[in-house]
Amino acid sequence: MPDFFGNLLRMLRGPRGSDVSFLCHKLLSERGEASQTAVAQEVINAYQGMPPDKRLEFYQMLCREFAPEQPAILRAAADYQRAPGPATLSALTSAVEPPRQELFRRINTAVHGTETLVAMRGDLLALIEKHPELTALDSDLRHLFRSWFNRGFLRLERVSWQTSARLLEKLIRYESVHEIHGWPDLRRRLEADRRCFAFFHPALGEEPVIFVEVALTKGLAGELEPLLDVRAPVLPSDQADTAIFYSINNCLPGLRGVPFGNFLIKQVVTDLATEFPKLSAYATLSPLPRFARALLDQENTHGFTRDRLQRLLADFHKELISAAGRKDSVDALFHLLKDPVRHRQVLIEPLRRLATAYLTQARCGGRRCDSVAAFHLSNGARLERVNPFGNLRPYGLKDSFGVTVNYRYLFDDLEENHERFVRQDEIQVSRGLSRELHAVAKAWHTPGDKPAGQKKG
Amino acid sequence: MPDFFGNLLRMLRGPRGSDVSFLCHKLLSERGEASQTAVAQEVINAYQGMPPDKRLEFYQMLCREFAPEQPAILRAAADYQRAPGPATLSALTSAVEPPRQELFRRINTAVHGTETLVAMRGDLLALIEKHPELTALDSDLRHLFRSWFNRGFLRLERVSWQTSARLLEKLIRYESVHEIHGWPDLRRRLEADRRCFAFFHPALGEEPVIFVEVALTKGLAGELEPLLDVRAPVLPSDQADTAIFYSINNCLPGLRGVPFGNFLIKQVVTDLATEFPKLSAYATLSPLPRFARALLDQENTHGFTRDRLQRLLADFHKELISAAGRKDSVDALFHLLKDPVRHRQVLIEPLRRLATAYLTQARCGGRRCDSVAAFHLSNGARLERVNPFGNLRPYGLKDSFGVTVNYRYLFDDLEENHERFVRQDEIQVSRGLSRELHAVAKAWHTPGDKPAGQKKG
Amino acid sequence: MPDFFGNLLRMLRGPRGSDVSFLCHKLLSERGEASQTAVAQEVINAYQGMPPDKRLEFYQMLCREFAPEQPAILRAAADYQRAPGPATLSALTSAVEPPRQELFRRINTAVHGTETLVAMRGDLLALIEKHPELTALDSDLRHLFRSWFNRGFLRLERVSWQTSARLLEKLIRYESVHEIHGWPDLRRRLEADRRCFAFFHPALGEEPVIFVEVALTKGLAGELEPLLDVRAPVLPSDQADTAIFYSINNCLPGLRGVPFGNFLIKQVVTDLATEFPKLSAYATLSPLPRFARALLDQENTHGFTRDRLQRLLADFHKELISAAGRKDSVDALFHLLKDPVRHRQVLIEPLRRLATAYLTQARCGGRRCDSVAAFHLSNGARLERVNPFGNLRPYGLKDSFGVTVNYRYLFDDLEENHERFVRQDEIQVSRGLSRELHAVAKAWHTPGDKPAGQKKG
Amino acid sequence: MPDFFGNLLRMLRGPRGSDVSFLCHKLLSERGEASQTAVAQEVINAYQGMPPDKRLEFYQMLCREFAPEQPAILRAAADYQRAPGPATLSALTSAVEPPRQELFRRINTAVHGTETLVAMRGDLLALIEKHPELTALDSDLRHLFRSWFNRGFLRLERVSWQTSARLLEKLIRYESVHEIHGWPDLRRRLEADRRCFAFFHPALGEEPVIFVEVALTKGLAGELEPLLDVRAPVLPSDQADTAIFYSINNCLPGLRGVPFGNFLIKQVVTDLATEFPKLSAYATLSPLPRFARALLDQENTHGFTRDRLQRLLADFHKELISAAGRKDSVDALFHLLKDPVRHRQVLIEPLRRLATAYLTQARCGGRRCDSVAAFHLSNGARLERVNPFGNLRPYGLKDSFGVTVNYRYLFDDLEENHERFVRQDEIQVSRGLSRELHAVAKAWHTPGDKPAGQKKG
Repeated sequence: MPDFFGNLLRMLRGPRGSDVSFLCHKLLSERGEASQTAVAQEVINAYQGMPPDKRLEFYQMLCREFAPEQPAILRAAADYQRAPGPATLSALTSAVEPPRQELFRRINTAVHGTETLVAMRGDLLALIEKHPELTALDSDLRHLFRSWFNRGFLRLERVSWQTSARLLEKLIRYESVHEIHGWPDLRRRLEADRRCFAFFHPALGEEPVIFVEVALTKGLAGELEPLLDVRAPVLPSDQADTAIFYSINNCLPGLRGVPFGNFLIKQVVTDLATEFPKLSAYATLSPLPRFARALLDQENTHGFTRDRLQRLLADFHKELISAAGRKDSVDALFHLLKDPVRHRQVLIEPLRRLATAYLTQARCGGRRCDSVAAFHLSNGARLERVNPFGNLRPYGLKDSFGVTVNYRYLFDDLEENHERFVRQDEIQVSRGLSRELHAVAKAWHTPGDKPAGQKKG
Repeated sequence: MPDFFGNLLRMLRGPRGSDVSFLCHKLLSERGEASQTAVAQEVINAYQGMPPDKRLEFYQMLCREFAPEQPAILRAAADYQRAPGPATLSALTSAVEPPRQELFRRINTAVHGTETLVAMRGDLLALIEKHPELTALDSDLRHLFRSWFNRGFLRLERVSWQTSARLLEKLIRYESVHEIHGWPDLRRRLEADRRCFAFFHPALGEEPVIFVEVALTKGLAGELEPLLDVRAPVLPSDQADTAIFYSINNCLPGLRGVPFGNFLIKQVVTDLATEFPKLSAYATLSPLPRFARALLDQENTHGFTRDRLQRLLADFHKELISAAGRKDSVDALFHLLKDPVRHRQVLIEPLRRLATAYLTQARCGGRRCDSVAAFHLSNGARLERVNPFGNLRPYGLKDSFGVTVNYRYLFDDLEENHERFVRQDEIQVSRGLSRELHAVAKAWHTPGDKPAGQKKG
Repeated sequence: MPDFFGNLLRMLRGPRGSDVSFLCHKLLSERGEASQTAVAQEVINAYQGMPPDKRLEFYQMLCREFAPEQPAILRAAADYQRAPGPATLSALTSAVEPPRQELFRRINTAVHGTETLVAMRGDLLALIEKHPELTALDSDLRHLFRSWFNRGFLRLERVSWQTSARLLEKLIRYESVHEIHGWPDLRRRLEADRRCFAFFHPALGEEPVIFVEVALTKGLAGELEPLLDVRAPVLPSDQADTAIFYSINNCLPGLRGVPFGNFLIKQVVTDLATEFPKLSAYATLSPLPRFARALLDQENTHGFTRDRLQRLLADFHKELISAAGRKDSVDALFHLLKDPVRHRQVLIEPLRRLATAYLTQARCGGRRCDSVAAFHLSNGARLERVNPFGNLRPYGLKDSFGVTVNYRYLFDDLEENHERFVRQDEIQVSRGLSRELHAVAKAWHTPGDKPAGQKKG
Repeated sequence: MPDFFGNLLRMLRGPRGSDVSFLCHKLLSERGEASQTAVAQEVINAYQGMPPDKRLEFYQMLCREFAPEQPAILRAAADYQRAPGPATLSALTSAVEPPRQELFRRINTAVHGTETLVAMRGDLLALIEKHPELTALDSDLRHLFRSWFNRGFLRLERVSWQTSARLLEKLIRYESVHEIHGWPDLRRRLEADRRCFAFFHPALGEEPVIFVEVALTKGLAGELEPLLDVRAPVLPSDQADTAIFYSINNCLPGLRGVPFGNFLIKQVVTDLATEFPKLSAYATLSPLPRFARALLDQENTHGFTRDRLQRLLADFHKELISAAGRKDSVDALFHLLKDPVRHRQVLIEPLRRLATAYLTQARCGGRRCDSVAAFHLSNGARLERVNPFGNLRPYGLKDSFGVTVNYRYLFDDLEENHERFVRQDEIQVSRGLSRELHAVAKAWHTPGDKPAGQKKG
């Protein structure tokens, strides 16, 4: 039950501007309605001036004092049970809606309201693991954001060297997949054979919510280095036949769980197809963010290596050790990677097989371990190619064991691929990978396994 | 219970592009998720191509097929009663949310989505009186719109002679308080001693959602004619001390009930105060839209003339008849209004008294009859002046019996005025009107009546 | 010799802000150099505040006091004669340059400088017929303007319903070929099957310098009425195969003699060709501004009806009188024009023949009488069609006897047509008109006449 | 005499697109008039594709073939002598105008025309020292540019972190006074206590023609280091009382000799005064670009050390050698500068005295040696302060011996200062420097020297 007497006391005691709880109650009260934007501004100022350690109290206060009232819900539920109908349903709907939602909507009437609420959720998410009681608060914010950050309100804009330095600087800050090393690096990523697009929301001004970096290439690029090389020659745009989405970045942690990426990719594909009619393939060049952790996790504490995968892994470790003549397999791997020719030949097949098995089989707690794969496959993309030495930069080795993956977007297949993936957990793969998968399956002697689908192309 | 088998049949029968019900179900299904914007576009096209007489069926289909499911609600309600807590609350909240809301959010992912949904509600509202079963559907749309058209997402812009003809043409079309008679009339309303501001929403492009016309004047203007006269000389802006809000127009019927006017007035006052530091008063010049109907309604069929008001009215009619020497009071009124000098003197006091009584006393079905008064008083404005011959244009005579009212916005009093009005139904009036009210009260010998508050100014 | 002592006296007397002569001298002096823009502003203010009758004095002062100095020129000329070379040429060039030019360049450093100088020349041109001594002043301004209003500095912009009302209002004011009757008329001219383009100069802000109105039609339009009809249906743009330039207007009299029209037409043709690849013909629909005057001028006081043309005219007058049964031929013409069927048939051939002869033969003081024809033919267009009843509006009858002409722009022929016209005074005509011309020539029995060229198409 | 037969031959031979001489003649011919922009474009393309070593030939061709014709000039000069009057003057004026001017105006009708002509003059200036015969060509271009780049056509714009990276990159490239070391350095120069403004010309798009960097400071800044330090704290703008113009850069060599700087400074002062009403002083922080060369030039080969200055210099060298205990004075100077405390004390007075004497006395070939001083003094600024150790960066030591100068712009004195400087070669100095100058004069025992003026402040 919300703290009714506390509230009453607070109201009776009269205004105390600096008390954020008081301000929130005022904003929802009748008095506040007349000067909504002004009071909302005060709440925003109070929040922005709040030391980080006070924020937890603030969230807890919101959970406590602005939750739906249990007695009212019980009453409304009973009424509905007695006589289900529009009137009782409407009453029940009102009873379950947390007053917080209206509070947030009112905060949003002030300048920088949206920005503050997004920052608030960002801060909240950092605390939520330790404070699961804040989950309801988070749900309310996410519910609002899914409505406010609806694709219909997002504006796709190209980001180029013509863009303001202020915005470009944000890209440098927000790029977390392939770090941008200063302005010359950024500049190369905005040359004639590159494209960068971002979604903006009208209430967030010049702050991007998500952006994607695209390289126009000749053929499907599996290796990252040529794309990121600052001194790489610029490909004349009439020679490009493929668009490679090599980096997708969400900018605002507070918008986690609000879906943009899907729309961004599809919109950008549409725009590129118009600008470059010669493009015939659209694919990502993606990492396997937790692949290395999985391979190194011989105790399987993360729970994502299934029996057969583990067997494959054990074989791989043995091969590594024998090939490198070292005792420890990780040590062996890094040793082998250093040799650009012979040792690579030793590694290439086992690594591809392992990564393919991981992408198609590994599960953690019921979900696919690889969230990047889950994202693209759920968008309807297909698994196109696995590149064993696609990213040899330190972070690429550390996270993905150097492997990269291409997911390909074939527009005519998206709907069906998506549905098969979501409903039947069936993954579409290219013909090339299909053979690989059969090899994997055969190696395991596990004919009962559901094979991945395979389609033209 | 939603039409489960119907849906199933539909799904099994396979795609039939032109069937809007099928398209809506597809948009909410897994298949639709992969190509949301494309399917949403098809729904929009289907709606736009729908003949008006098919719309009712469409709304009924949405009510029937996309309503929350009763068994699920009953189940969730029972669960909550058994164990009230975050998990059961969350389940109950999900159960009561109509699938329509998600459907609308998905429609909104397409180009022109917002525009179509707003138009849809506009069409719906025209049918709702005869089809009260559509009320739930309307609630869902209004709920979404209150979130989407939150003040934080609206952009205030000045409209001037510098604005595109396309937008100005919309003003001519949307102005419904004081009709704009062609471009010269519009031009006069955008001269140096006039201002026009509109709210725009990013998803509606150049379509204004509400606009206000302001005249900068010397002293409080009570008469409309000098403000609307196309040939009126332009007041040098350094001579102006008052801003008169003489016309506020909502542009889109589909946004009825979504509050903007309040924010618009307050924002414009703020902006004008910056541009013209010499302004010392901000007031409206408003009509009494149903005053004439009330006065002529001697049988009180609309139920808004209370006993005492009716007595006052009867006196007024007698006075009219005796002053004009005619049998019928309406006839008499129009006759008297024609005489610019003597007869006016006869009418002026009774009309002001009557209008003041009407504004402060008259109620229809529990609410104040005068919705314009209710709007401004609820915003925290005070009743400043009643002008018996403020608008002698035909529509001014017809609707308001020629009377206009000034509501004044005094920034420091808004909160308190608002609260007193909302909580205690107490109206704040200027000192001048306060004396008038006492006279009215005295004339009625009704000491028990709650007097209106009176404040400085 | 410039008024040296007057200047000296003026300088000694010290500043007298309101004396524009003093200000001009100051602006050119060393003192003025330090605060050029400020002094230039004063000159501008002085000019703008000058009553019209003082302007003549002002121009005369500029001619007198800011002309090149005769003794200096004589000296420099003698020096050059003695030793022609770069140094003496440079000195001679300096000596002949009027100080006015530098004065104007300095006036142009102030805000609104260009605007004022253009207005100044506009005012000057209105006086010049009566005051030929101002010709040198006009030359200086025109010389500057030809440099400043060089095509490279002009910006072509489309004018549409999306344009600001302020600019559109200017179009209404500046349109002098086919008067725009208010906003609905303007609106029709900006519909989907119409285009309007204007040249703007960066120093003149939103003031257009010239604009053209274009209609997209099916086939070559010879009649004006369907193009100007406000209620004419809008032609779907994919049905249009011809662009008709039906009105070209110079906006600023002060820019007379500075060539824009040529560039405007060619640029617009280029832009339209990009937007509408289906367009296959570009032509004007032009008036014959002095045709009626020529026909009615039986005494040939204007000197432009040559013998043969006069004979043709006399025949035409006889035909008219006999066809209409009236005594006076003008009276007869108007009488005949009223009859939509039979009488037209009587007139059509003689009128076409007469107009064709006029366009190709008539000269006034050495030049072609028809300045519109001279403009388009000099641009390299060809005479395509003569339409006897192309413009029956009162001004069309009054100026052009109802006749309109199509000049066609065939891009491949422009250079050659232009050169033949300029060098050999040879006019290119369409095949249809070529036959007409032969008929005319035959009628006159004057085989020695230079025939107009004829080309494909 | 221009190469008449050559031209004729060329014309007869027919079009040879790649021959730029042919193209230029065509552009000026009648044929070219009809398709001016197209032919102009060809000339531009030909120039842009020309290898650097062919440019000299091109310029020489322009000089030879597009010069005014001597016989025609002689004829017109004789006519004028016989009968001086408007007609003969007009003929003479036409005869002396080089056809090049019209050629350049026609080149300018094409896209990128202005840009190409400016680049052309830039290239030309690099050759002119060795090829003085090209001077006339340069004069023609400069004459046109002074007209085209008139202040009235320039647009002042603030450059900030909000500006496009493309433009900011140009600043980095064009800054030649105080090199910008990459993006963080640039960013500091665009912080809240800095301003940057540039002039743009409409025909050059985003290419700046000149820009100025300003620091807002507390008190008159004499030392450069705190202004350029990337990590310097940002001064709150309400604490600033002085605007320091610390870097002014012309961007395009081709515009040398076209005056902008004067207008830029004055316009920026005006704009800053509006934005920051608290600013009370506007001054530069300027280098003495050839000071070091003058001091080291003991043989006075550059001819700018007058007797007395040389005596002063000799004293200075002696002082240096004695203070530093070194044999060579330059060596001694650099040795002394390394010592931050004691040795500086030794140097400070002699250096200031020397620099002050240099600025006020040194002349090279009749002009003041210091072009920066000449620029600001001619603008009407006064010599405010000499800062012996204002710029200890390597280039500051190398060029200016570490000295910086403040020139102060006092708006009320500009006109008079300018006039005194230009007419009487009189320099205005601050009270502080005035004392210094008296000391210098006294040290020299040369009472007959014209003392610099001194004014309030």
